[in-house]
Amino acid sequence: MTTQPTQVRFNKPAEGIPGNNTWTITHDPIADPREGEIAIKLHYLSIDPAIKGWITDKKSYIEAVKPGDVMRGFGVAEVIASESDYFSVGDFCTGFTGIQTHATMDSRQLRKIDPQLAPLSRFMGGLGMPGFTAYFGLLDIGKPAPGETVVVSSAAGAVGHIVAQIAKLKGCRVVGIAGGEAKCAYLRDELKLDAVIDYREGNLPEALAVAAPEGVDVYFDGVGGETLDAVLMVANRHARIIACGAVSQYANLEAPQGLGNYMLVITQSLMIKGFTMRDYMHRIKEAFIDLLTWEHEGKVVFREHILNGIECYPEAVKMIYSGKNNGKLMIKVSD
Amino acid sequence: MTTQPTQVRFNKPAEGIPGNNTWTITHDPIADPREGEIAIKLHYLSIDPAIKGWITDKKSYIEAVKPGDVMRGFGVAEVIASESDYFSVGDFCTGFTGIQTHATMDSRQLRKIDPQLAPLSRFMGGLGMPGFTAYFGLLDIGKPAPGETVVVSSAAGAVGHIVAQIAKLKGCRVVGIAGGEAKCAYLRDELKLDAVIDYREGNLPEALAVAAPEGVDVYFDGVGGETLDAVLMVANRHARIIACGAVSQYANLEAPQGLGNYMLVITQSLMIKGFTMRDYMHRIKEAFIDLLTWEHEGKVVFREHILNGIECYPEAVKMIYSGKNNGKLMIKVSD
Repeated sequence: MTTQPTQVRFNKPAEGIPGNNTWTITHDPIADPREGEIAIKLHYLSIDPAIKGWITDKKSYIEAVKPGDVMRGFGVAEVIASESDYFSVGDFCTGFTGIQTHATMDSRQLRKIDPQLAPLSRFMGGLGMPGFTAYFGLLDIGKPAPGETVVVSSAAGAVGHIVAQIAKLKGCRVVGIAGGEAKCAYLRDELKLDAVIDYREGNLPEALAVAAPEGVDVYFDGVGGETLDAVLMVANRHARIIACGAVSQYANLEAPQGLGNYMLVITQSLMIKGFTMRDYMHRIKEAFIDLLTWEHEGKVVFREHILNGIECYPEAVKMIYSGKNNGKLMIKVSD
Repeated sequence: MTTQPTQVRFNKPAEGIPGNNTWTITHDPIADPREGEIAIKLHYLSIDPAIKGWITDKKSYIEAVKPGDVMRGFGVAEVIASESDYFSVGDFCTGFTGIQTHATMDSRQLRKIDPQLAPLSRFMGGLGMPGFTAYFGLLDIGKPAPGETVVVSSAAGAVGHIVAQIAKLKGCRVVGIAGGEAKCAYLRDELKLDAVIDYREGNLPEALAVAAPEGVDVYFDGVGGETLDAVLMVANRHARIIACGAVSQYANLEAPQGLGNYMLVITQSLMIKGFTMRDYMHRIKEAFIDLLTWEHEGKVVFREHILNGIECYPEAVKMIYSGKNNGKLMIKVSD
């Protein structure tokens, strides 16, 4: 593990998937905390599908990262020096730490976490943003009723595998869409979903018709594009589509693909509702309690895919966009 | 006016806008009503943007009209013979009468109307489906709050001019989009909208930015396509988009244009909610009472564009798709 302070900085915009040239590594020393600030040492860094959006200068919920800046990213960290009343040395916290091994920042930008409740990595996954995203997206927007059919794309991914399990808990018929036999086997054999579709086998509309014989009531969409269009074709009247991501479009944010079956939104009275966790930050406690309880009771499992060393960040980004990760992808940067 | 029974039948599918060959005219005699049926004489026939959808064999909320069938359409009619307990000769009614001068049908498919409350044409417009569509779409889905900015496309159309007036009533800043100076002048001078955009002048995104300096909170969308994409660019967080129609796409339902700015649905937490009046038929009384009251108090005006004679149906259909109508387009078929 790297011990000297290390930062991954945004170098220059990428066409398509960010590659090695998108980033530069620096080893700037860490600043001493000033009044209200804390110095932190990172343990885990999160790899998110939002990365491409964060470095694309387009209207969004958050300003684009500028070339030369430390790359944006979530982390779990330990406080190593504090000039804040809210944090003591040895506390743990999470938030937008940036992709670096150490940082000095305003303590109000971070949220304290309790390492006694779960392994630290969990706060990047099931008990962090992916878990909360799954929870609020499915339950608050999708409002699945027992017996309804819920389709989840990226179903073996960081958010998707949690959505699928919550939907099962709520008594729904759950159809998972994923790429490749390993992921599909996981969804079928480990998560016991009612039906699993490998989108790489093609003919998604037909596969969906078989997997959802009574149509689709709720679709948790992490991919957009053709998959969304295919689900619209089997959507029941008043179906709810949770627009959480469009990973199929991220390589081409400058000229995204459209929604060919838009007419069905009207004729089937569908709702497409987008959200980001910014909408729910004031309510994370309820998600945290339920997710912690469900895991404790063995009702949900959280899958984590952990890489080692901040140097692998460029490869990790390629991995998230090629869908090679199994569950929540993160980098361990400190023991 | 035609006195012999006349039917407009669907002849064969049209590429693009339906033309003269899309229809055939027949003069079949009217059947005597059997138990539960009534015979009616039509006074008004409604011309709706849904026509192209009704003759396109694609998944929809309603079965496609088959070649040879009397064309689907709404009408206002007078009962001329009755074998039903619900209707007497001389009563008036409305519903899916078909595009014809006379009909014999199950009385339960029709809704009685009171001709003392308003001129008969009104039940095709402000006190009929267009009025109800405007009312529920804007108020039940859009939920505009005073001071919010509401954008209405097809703002001089059957539904749009009512949406715009209700939004003004509710204390919103209202921006109307329409095509051509005559319609824009109507919106500006008669309806007193806060801003009016002639989409034919081009550069809609820039015009919207000027017309809605505080962004858009509610968009009542009757056109889809590029206009929808442009509004997404100025949509405020949590904006509500009421998907009521996509008239820009109707000429090409086989390969509709997509939603290029879909990513903003996610990043801005937007809601796109489609509906048809089928969702609200159990609630039309509340819309009827409010709309009748508002018209009686002079708070809203209902604009009607009335053509004469069932023979002009093919031309009327071309007119609705070229946007040449001013307000609700209908055909008077009987005095």
